[in-house]
Order: sequence, then structure tokens, then C-alpha cells
Amino acid sequence: MVVGDFATKRQLVIIGGGPGGYHAAIRAAQLGIEVTLIEKEKLGGVCLHKGCIPSKSLTQSASNFSSLSQFKNMGISVSEASFEYDTFSNYFSSVVTGLQKGVEALIKANKIEHLTGTASFMSGERIGIDSGHHFEMYEFEHALIATGSSPLLPDQTKLSHRIMTPHTLWELDELPESLFIYGYDYFALEAAMAYKQLGSEVTLAIPSDGFGLDASIEKELQRVLKKNKIKVFKNHLWESAEEMADSVTVSLKKDGDEKVSVETSHVLFAAGYSPNVEGLGLEAISIERDQSGFIIVNEHSQSSVSNIYAAGDCTIGMKLASKAIKQGKTAAEHMAGMQSAFNLSLVPYVVHTNPPIASVGLTEEQARAEGYEVKTGQFSMSGNGFASILGQKEGLSKMVMDAKSDVVLGIHVMGAGAVEMIQAGTFALEMVAREEDLSYPVYAHPALNEAWLEAIESASGKAIHVPPARKKEKSSV
Amino acid sequence: MVVGDFATKRQLVIIGGGPGGYHAAIRAAQLGIEVTLIEKEKLGGVCLHKGCIPSKSLTQSASNFSSLSQFKNMGISVSEASFEYDTFSNYFSSVVTGLQKGVEALIKANKIEHLTGTASFMSGERIGIDSGHHFEMYEFEHALIATGSSPLLPDQTKLSHRIMTPHTLWELDELPESLFIYGYDYFALEAAMAYKQLGSEVTLAIPSDGFGLDASIEKELQRVLKKNKIKVFKNHLWESAEEMADSVTVSLKKDGDEKVSVETSHVLFAAGYSPNVEGLGLEAISIERDQSGFIIVNEHSQSSVSNIYAAGDCTIGMKLASKAIKQGKTAAEHMAGMQSAFNLSLVPYVVHTNPPIASVGLTEEQARAEGYEVKTGQFSMSGNGFASILGQKEGLSKMVMDAKSDVVLGIHVMGAGAVEMIQAGTFALEMVAREEDLSYPVYAHPALNEAWLEAIESASGKAIHVPPARKKEKSSV
Repeated sequence: MVVGDFATKRQLVIIGGGPGGYHAAIRAAQLGIEVTLIEKEKLGGVCLHKGCIPSKSLTQSASNFSSLSQFKNMGISVSEASFEYDTFSNYFSSVVTGLQKGVEALIKANKIEHLTGTASFMSGERIGIDSGHHFEMYEFEHALIATGSSPLLPDQTKLSHRIMTPHTLWELDELPESLFIYGYDYFALEAAMAYKQLGSEVTLAIPSDGFGLDASIEKELQRVLKKNKIKVFKNHLWESAEEMADSVTVSLKKDGDEKVSVETSHVLFAAGYSPNVEGLGLEAISIERDQSGFIIVNEHSQSSVSNIYAAGDCTIGMKLASKAIKQGKTAAEHMAGMQSAFNLSLVPYVVHTNPPIASVGLTEEQARAEGYEVKTGQFSMSGNGFASILGQKEGLSKMVMDAKSDVVLGIHVMGAGAVEMIQAGTFALEMVAREEDLSYPVYAHPALNEAWLEAIESASGKAIHVPPARKKEKSSV
Repeated sequence: MVVGDFATKRQLVIIGGGPGGYHAAIRAAQLGIEVTLIEKEKLGGVCLHKGCIPSKSLTQSASNFSSLSQFKNMGISVSEASFEYDTFSNYFSSVVTGLQKGVEALIKANKIEHLTGTASFMSGERIGIDSGHHFEMYEFEHALIATGSSPLLPDQTKLSHRIMTPHTLWELDELPESLFIYGYDYFALEAAMAYKQLGSEVTLAIPSDGFGLDASIEKELQRVLKKNKIKVFKNHLWESAEEMADSVTVSLKKDGDEKVSVETSHVLFAAGYSPNVEGLGLEAISIERDQSGFIIVNEHSQSSVSNIYAAGDCTIGMKLASKAIKQGKTAAEHMAGMQSAFNLSLVPYVVHTNPPIASVGLTEEQARAEGYEVKTGQFSMSGNGFASILGQKEGLSKMVMDAKSDVVLGIHVMGAGAVEMIQAGTFALEMVAREEDLSYPVYAHPALNEAWLEAIESASGKAIHVPPARKKEKSSV
């Protein structure tokens, strides 16, 4: 290895080529900053290679597969259908490769220097880059840490082809006969429903008594999980997993001493992450981190060391590519002298179950806890004409409002189209919409979006497709 | 027939149980008005029985059918697939029946009197209702005319099982071998693409040189029509149709004298409508109408006779159920003393082609014609990660803005998810969003909605997934 003495000067060095890193690199380049982007593996990061893209390919395939029975009702005669894991695996690999090439082309077109190697801070202005055969020192004006995070595994549990995390799930070469999932976030839910709909037996255990969604959505979700015959253990804590030749036995503990053991062919442990900061030399720059090691950043993505920024999963807070992207772009703009800042109070939360769930802003429970006098409106997708056409009548839409000001505080939907529908919610909340702003527009008909209108109108007893409450019910309110 | 001399008194009489009529009836009932709803056929009107619901069942079936090849790529092995018209026909009939029962139940639950019969005005306060075996006179405080419209047919062309309008298309008992469509609106486009994708040979002739969409969308649409092998005759006027035993020959005329004739098994004439006002006794109330006979209404849905309102397709302007619904509800609220008014400048226009198209506000061309200094941003769906996952990369998103104020004037999208995505556009425009309002929020990832962000960012050269313009190109701008 050659260790250079001379430090190359760079305006911006970015560590990590995932969504946070590459969005930051391109935005910085757009603003005229000379950028060096260091990635030790492939551009696109976990999101592209082991996260968003494979997982949404999976959920979409599962959703398509389960739609075939409805297709039959609509006149599409399909003689035999089966799910071929190999073909699926090739499919998502080709999608990933296509997108990776796209990112590489963009990095090149934006004249961003792309280095393959590992980076380690020497000081608040110097970083060493080890590309295996070569070590080079860079002197930077600004740096951005966007190294992501890695899924945790419990002590004494070892990764294997049977015991997997969200990052290794994609190494499967066939559909699991049975899958035990421990986890409480969108990833656990998506995997549970997708594998079940593709034919695996699925058991889901969560340490809490719910998934943190609005209670109305949560209730409908529980019903859908039950209907899909997904066994759910609530309030169960992971104890241990014992791997045998062709199965794994997972032990769980509930409340006091009650124990449960589940035998399964495969296990997905999807509960918790730790930041990828080992070997990064953070001790050389005394950057502030929380007790789990995540980097603390302000609303400009700036760490406690003012010329060093951080974005995405290696920072405190939610682990979502959307957050990484926003933080990366904000960092680039802020170091270019712009007044950019992000606000994570209105990040849409999307779960690609079938039907999907999407949510933005406060749940009813959160709004009450924050002291609002709450008014809500809710509408069942079974009353929506387009949902009837689709034959996908599960789910509901819900609006949470401040009863005093009529300002909309939260918007939630479970049902066909939810992933696309939530953008209207984001815009509404960002623009501080009031009830009237959402009830006044003309809504296309027939359309799933009409469920927004009915939810908002039902808050004041004005939904057209909800029968008036009976007098008895009314008087008991 | 018994002709009663005694006139029953009613607060509100509504003629027509389509979307305009039944929404008005329910909203009026919610506001404490006693309503009589007269429908000569089935509740739900053309929209439910011969329009929106059957047509969207068709487009959805066609879209599902054509998605099977993509399903295969994703691992869903389907051995043989065919489209069975009978099953489809039963399907949409069952959807229609289900929704009709829903409307009937709502009418009953809202204590609305529902009469089956034909209505005819006697004066500005009296209306006669002929139920076949019985004729009754009603004295009303307010009336609402919501009788809809009927498709036009050219002189000397007769309806048959081969020559159809949008209302009779649903009487088909098999897939047409070939279908010639004359028309320029969403209905013609939807039918063209759906029948083609289900297996019919399709020819489309339009009297204009486009479909009135934003030019960027129009261009992509033309490409998609061509790729789908749908033959399009632009600027061709209908001349005549000659029906033989097992075919129809349609003659068209272009510009000067150029003539074209097309032989086809079936014809769909979808160009123009006339209001359903015959026999309604409008002469007794001297209500103002335009030269085609459509009822002129103000923004409260009020006709020139102040206690008589009109809603939907029998009124001037666009023929969309969404307009009928808004006008119906506005009429009910206004007659109840509220200050309700509608504004049709931001009605979303949705075309259920495959991929679908949705649009709200001004096209680029309209914005320029209105004198705006226009700034636009555009993004190809091929650059969207979720579109890659779906394998549906056709289409684009586009934002039209006022360059001086950054206010968004129009939002357009063609691509998977367009129907649901447009609601975000409607909210944005209704709330007078500026560029920053749409670029600031955090967008879920991966999602089709990110195409909005990239379109808005591309307006100022900031889209992440668009390579920077080459210098040569830049200097030539």
C-alpha cells in the first residue's frame, strides 16, 4: 500500500453513496461545488441493493400475485398460476442493476469524482481513503457522513441462511416454507404480508401491542392480518433462537413468565439498527452522537462539528430513505450558503402491505396527547365506487383535525392506491389546509381519492355515502 | 290514469337520480330539507349504468389483462390467459347492481321520497309526475333539474348493435373484432386503448389535431397510441356510415376533398351530447338555455328562474360526473341558505388509458395564451425508481408555473398511478401553491409521487435524476 504524504484538496467529501450521499453529491454539483463521493461497495447503498428496491419488488410481486383471483372475476381467465422465486430474484436484480447504472451515469454527468474505498477521518479537515491497493489523504472544506446503518441481531444469535435481517433477506434462493418475523416497523409488516401472499406460512411477533399507526388503521390492519391467516404475537419479547439442520426454534417471552416457542424454517429479525460508523475515525473529530451511536444533526444536517454534515440512517431519528434524501440535499444547499433546513414532522409513512397503508402528520392519539381538541372524519373504502370496480374494498381513509381551527393535523389511509394518495395529504398538511380547503375542490369521479372527500365531510356528518346516524345512536353520544 | 287535482307540497323536487341528483338529494336531506327524487329508470343514472362505472370496469380489466406479461417478468408464471367477455359483463353488472343498491339504501336512510316516473313542469312552482299508472301534481319551493344528456348520432346514422354510442356500448355481448371510434374526448381514448389491449383492432378518428391535453402529454400519448398499434386519423370529419350484414363502412373527409373509408365490425360514435330536456315542460318555465339547449346556470347551480336549479350534463359546460356532483351539492346548500358556490377552473381531467393521464389547471399552451410568462418542469417516468419496479416506465409528469410569482398554474401526469396522483395537484392548485411549497416537503421513497418533485425541481435545473444539460445545449437556449 502506498501512503501519500500530500493531501489532495476537495471542497466536499461525501462518505457513502446511498440515497443521502448521492442526492447530496448531485445537489452540491448543481450548486457548483467540487465533490468527491466515496463508496466502499456499490452506488445506491442499502436502499437500492438491500432495502427499498428489493423489498418493494417483493411487495409488488406479492400484490400482483394475489390480485389474480380478482382478475378472474373481471374476465381474465388464467388457467394456472405459480410464483417462481428464481424469476422474481432475477427481476429485482435487473431492476437494481438498471437503477445503479442510472445513478452511476448521473454521478458522471455531474462531474462528481467517485472513489471506491473506505474512509477514515484524521481530523476535522482531513480524511484518508483506503482503496485497498492505495491510500490517499484528502483535505476537505466540508464533509458529509452518509454511511447508513446495519440491522441489529440479538446477542448469541448468528446470521445464517435461515436467520436473516432485512439486509440479508435478499440472499434467499427460494420462498421460505415458513417465516417467523420479529419486528414492529413497516419492513416487518411488508415482509409478513408479502411472503404470506406468496405462499409461506408467516408468524409475526412484536414487542409492543401495535405498529404505531392511527388506532382506526391499526384495527383494520389487525383484521386484514387475521384474514390473511398471519399469526401475530403481541407484547412478546425475543428470547433466543436455536438453529437446527432444517429449522429454527424461536423462544419468546410475554409479560411475566409466559413463554412461547415457535418452530419455523426461516427467521427474519427486523428490530433495531446501529449506525455504520466503525472505522470511520469519528474519535478524531469528536462529533456528538446519541447513546446508540447515531450522529446528532441540526435542521441543516450539520453535526456538532460545523463543517461536517451527516444524513440518513447514520443520524438520529427515523430510518427512511426519504429522510436521507432530504437531509442530503439540505446539507449540500446549506454548505453552499443557502438557508436550507428540513422539518421531519410531516414525513409520509408508507407501508407496502396489501392493501397498502400511508400516513402523514398526527394520529388521532398523538393529536390528543399534544392537547388538541380533536375532530375526526373517517370513511370505509367499501363505500368508494372505484374500490368496488377494483374489487379492493378493504381499508379506510381518516382525517384528524383541530376542532377549534379546522386545521388538518393528520391524514391516514389504508387501501388500494394509498401510496399515491398520500401525496395529497402531504401537500395539504404542508400548506396548513383547513377542512374547507379539502371539501371545496372538485374530485374526479370515480376515483379512490373521493375517499378523502368523504372522510373530511364525515367529520361534520356530511359524507354522501355514509348513512345518517340513527337517532338512538345520536342520543347516546 | 288518474289525474289528481290536488297538488302535494314539497320543499324540493329533484328530477333525475344520477350523481348530480342523488348527491343533491342527500345533501339537501342532511340540511333538513324534505326531498322528492324522481327518476324514470334506475337510481345512479348514466354514470352508474352506462358511463363511469361500466367504462372504468372495462379500462381496469383491459389494464389488468395487459399487465400479465409484466407479471411474468416479476415471477408470476401464468400458463394461459384469455379475456372472457361474458365474465367481464357479469362482473360490471354486479358492480353496478351493488352500487345501485348502495344508493337506494342511502336514499332511504336519508328519508328521501323516491318516485319512479317522468316529470314535467307546469309552472315555476308546479310539476306533474307521470308514473305510468298514475299522474300526480307537486307544488315545490325549489326544483333541481339533473336529467343528464344523451350522445348525439349524425343525421342518417341509426343506432344498431354495430353502430353504438357511449351509452349503448355496454349492450355488446362479445368483444368487437374491430372497432372504429369517432371522438376526441376521454371516453374515445379510453375505449380505443381498452379494446385494443383486449384484442380488438382499433381505429380512432378525431375531427381535430389532438385531444386538448398539454402538448408534452399529447406527444407521449401519440407515441403510446402508435406503440399500441392504434391507427389514428387526425383532422378527419365524419361523413357517413353504411351498415352491411356483418360490417360497417365509415366514410371520413379530410381538409379539402380527401376522403377515407374504413371497414370495421363495430363503430363507436362518441362526439357530442344533447341535453335530456324533451318532455320536461321547460317551455312552461322559460328557463334560459344555450343554443344547443343546455341549461344555463350560475355558480350556485341556479338557473335563470331563481328557485329552479340545474346540475350535471344537462347544463352548459363539461360533461363529467364530478361536475354534476359538485353542482348538485352546491344547489342543495344554496337553496338551504348557505353561500355555496362552485368553481370549475380546477376540475381534474382524468383519462383511464393505460398508462392513465390526469391533469388539473392550465396546460402550458393555455397558460401562455392567458398571457403568463411561463416556466415549466418535466420529468420522464422512466427515471422514477418505483416505475422501474412496476415495469411501467411510460409517461411523464409536468408542472406549469408563472415565472414571475412561482405560482403553480397546471399539473399534468401520464403514467402508472396518475389517477391517484392528481389529487395532490388539485390540492396544490386550490391552495395556490408556489414552487417552494412543492419542493420543500419530504416525499416518500420509492414512490411514483417523486415524479412531482423531480418535475418541479427540473424547472430550475435541480432535478436529481435528470443529467445536467450539456453546455452546447445550454448556450443554444
